[in-house]
Amino acid sequence: MGEKVIQVGLLGMGTVGSGVVKLLAANAQDIARKVGAPVRIKKVLVRDPEKPRPGLLPDQLVYDVTAVIDDADIDIIVEVMGGEQPAKDYILQALNRRKHVVTANKDVVAKYGRELFAAAEANHVDFLFEASVGGGIPIIRPLKQCLAANKISEVMGIVNGTTNYMLTQMTQHGLDFATALRQAQAAGYAEADPTADVGGWDAARKIAILASIAFGTRVTVDDVYVEGITTIGAEDIEYACELGYVLKLLAVAKETDKGIDVRVHPAFIPHHHPLAAVQDVFNAIYVRGDAVGETMFYGRGAGQMPTASAVVADVIDVARDIRHHVSSRILCTCYEQKPLCPIEQTASPYYIRLLVEDKPGVLAAIAGAFGAQQVSLHSVIQKRKVDNWAEVVLITYRVSHASLRLAINTIEGMSIVSKVQNVIRVETGEID
Amino acid sequence: MGEKVIQVGLLGMGTVGSGVVKLLAANAQDIARKVGAPVRIKKVLVRDPEKPRPGLLPDQLVYDVTAVIDDADIDIIVEVMGGEQPAKDYILQALNRRKHVVTANKDVVAKYGRELFAAAEANHVDFLFEASVGGGIPIIRPLKQCLAANKISEVMGIVNGTTNYMLTQMTQHGLDFATALRQAQAAGYAEADPTADVGGWDAARKIAILASIAFGTRVTVDDVYVEGITTIGAEDIEYACELGYVLKLLAVAKETDKGIDVRVHPAFIPHHHPLAAVQDVFNAIYVRGDAVGETMFYGRGAGQMPTASAVVADVIDVARDIRHHVSSRILCTCYEQKPLCPIEQTASPYYIRLLVEDKPGVLAAIAGAFGAQQVSLHSVIQKRKVDNWAEVVLITYRVSHASLRLAINTIEGMSIVSKVQNVIRVETGEID
Repeated sequence: MGEKVIQVGLLGMGTVGSGVVKLLAANAQDIARKVGAPVRIKKVLVRDPEKPRPGLLPDQLVYDVTAVIDDADIDIIVEVMGGEQPAKDYILQALNRRKHVVTANKDVVAKYGRELFAAAEANHVDFLFEASVGGGIPIIRPLKQCLAANKISEVMGIVNGTTNYMLTQMTQHGLDFATALRQAQAAGYAEADPTADVGGWDAARKIAILASIAFGTRVTVDDVYVEGITTIGAEDIEYACELGYVLKLLAVAKETDKGIDVRVHPAFIPHHHPLAAVQDVFNAIYVRGDAVGETMFYGRGAGQMPTASAVVADVIDVARDIRHHVSSRILCTCYEQKPLCPIEQTASPYYIRLLVEDKPGVLAAIAGAFGAQQVSLHSVIQKRKVDNWAEVVLITYRVSHASLRLAINTIEGMSIVSKVQNVIRVETGEID
Repeated sequence: MGEKVIQVGLLGMGTVGSGVVKLLAANAQDIARKVGAPVRIKKVLVRDPEKPRPGLLPDQLVYDVTAVIDDADIDIIVEVMGGEQPAKDYILQALNRRKHVVTANKDVVAKYGRELFAAAEANHVDFLFEASVGGGIPIIRPLKQCLAANKISEVMGIVNGTTNYMLTQMTQHGLDFATALRQAQAAGYAEADPTADVGGWDAARKIAILASIAFGTRVTVDDVYVEGITTIGAEDIEYACELGYVLKLLAVAKETDKGIDVRVHPAFIPHHHPLAAVQDVFNAIYVRGDAVGETMFYGRGAGQMPTASAVVADVIDVARDIRHHVSSRILCTCYEQKPLCPIEQTASPYYIRLLVEDKPGVLAAIAGAFGAQQVSLHSVIQKRKVDNWAEVVLITYRVSHASLRLAINTIEGMSIVSKVQNVIRVETGEID
């Protein structure tokens, strides 16, 4: 074993950074055997170098980023600061100084992927980001390598643990959204400002990254249609269950003949779909390829050690490249720019919950209004009264988003309709 | 793009071989972009070179293996003949002629892994075998790369599609073993001689391979304790369901303080365990690591195109190595030889189904006999009569295999006991 030590410079010593330090120490011997050389942290960029850090010596701590990036002994920069800036600038500087870079930063990868890949390629270094999606779940490398022989048609994931925890609690205990959110905050799963999670924006960044890799075209967060779970009521979840579905916040990317369809929204999925069994803070990513068929990757999508697991796996991969004098073996795989499918042209069955007048002929009138917009109804349930109104739940056949919106507008204008309470897509799991 | 074509020699043109030819043709353009060069099949070893093969020209077909292995233009040998010999000899010859080798052959990898890895290392070539376990499911590369930062404590899989199909049918439709087998044969999922599948031997080869990689120690098929599903009755499955479990044929490998515990047997798993939802011919491998926690990899464990997906992924990986002038980047990871845990020392709760005399005091006598062997009973169900006997079902607390066997021997000798009908392990999913 040639004993050239592989040296790591760590940017950030928060939750994930501390996990990386812990993991590299705990499994140091195994990692050295896999790499063929020891892997050590040389310097760590911290905000406060005076604060003692377990597992690190004071002289390893620096507060000036150039002391890390310009250190000629450092081979790999690991960025675990999070946020767009200054993380993106630091990564770019590191690549331009011919350092390999490993990052867990979905914001930076989703927004600046193109620029950073180009810099990595120009400088003949690796740029890896397994931890940016799905926490500890292997998904980037499986898409880039293990499923590389496939034409991927669909990636569908539960990629936000906070909302999956909330929806699981709502499903199991009949909670409403506000109670589930308070519970998630109390459990430490949701932040004080939960917008990024419950609004779907965290999931949108992740599906942008996954779609880019799966379809070989650059998809950014701005390309993603996003609906959050804030309008989901306990009633919607009850109806889902009764109709044989589970309600999940899905991140969906499909390659269709109308372009790349990429979106985040709550959806009914059939209870027998592999994603339906994914509960609590667990994440899973379901991938369909032309050769492999259906696959799914399941695990913890966040947390200190799962995320550190993915970061250190990337470090090991880079270290193996360094030992074998190779780099940029697998870089950007966005070979062409494919058009996006406008959300209006996407199609699926829909669930619609309405409050209508409780009198004869109302259901026929509603069905007629949907029919006039070419929306056929698969099933209609009328179950309970809310004040003096009747609650009606409809499941449509597959219909375009545009037609559905027109139909909903018509329905909303009808005097017999008090309110359209919710409209939720049904993902059938069938090939479109 | 440097246009040096990567040339493949294919050994075998059965189901998987034809799938590899199809897939390399169907996605040729994407694969060329990923590799940076076209990947083409130059020669194919077949039994009958006169038989026309779709997608191949007559002069690509040869019946002499040396015409493939000795061809200086061929970079990668893909072995998809199956069976131990002559496949193993051909692989070894190819490695010794400095050809990279990709194989789908679990028999060869499970039995001759050590020798073949050594030959690959000595000749500075790649030796990849993703398709040997789990068909299209990425699991070898995830274990060797994506989870490389972890100390793996447990790998537990449903790795045989035939038996999982049979057990699913038995569970859903109350079939007995013989009917389920006939149905699997009619559906083309089971062979005329189903021994390797229903006897657990196919799963044993796969878990030997997985255990070797997960724990960094060579485990061969002879090290695996094996029980098949031939004794499973419809009653056992009914009781599993009633008690909140699902019955699966599990391939289990754990690193314990008594050594490597590796076995294949039917098991009750809790209905909420991620593996419990894996139905029909689908496979899944559940992996627990110290950092990542629980992960699971799900998909089609067999079939022409899923297997071809894994084979061609390996070909792409080797081709990328060739393009980057690197090889043997990741070879054997069995760094030490760890002791095995004898099956007698393994421990778990057990399910036991007995026929006993239907009279007062019998249950107390049985509980006493178990207690005398230090086996505590968690629950006892007495539900129905079989002829003049009472059927009793027991779930024990965690107990060693040795103590359990002693207790069963005692029970079998009791005059009030007609028959011990079945004894099945319970895998709780808890960390041991």
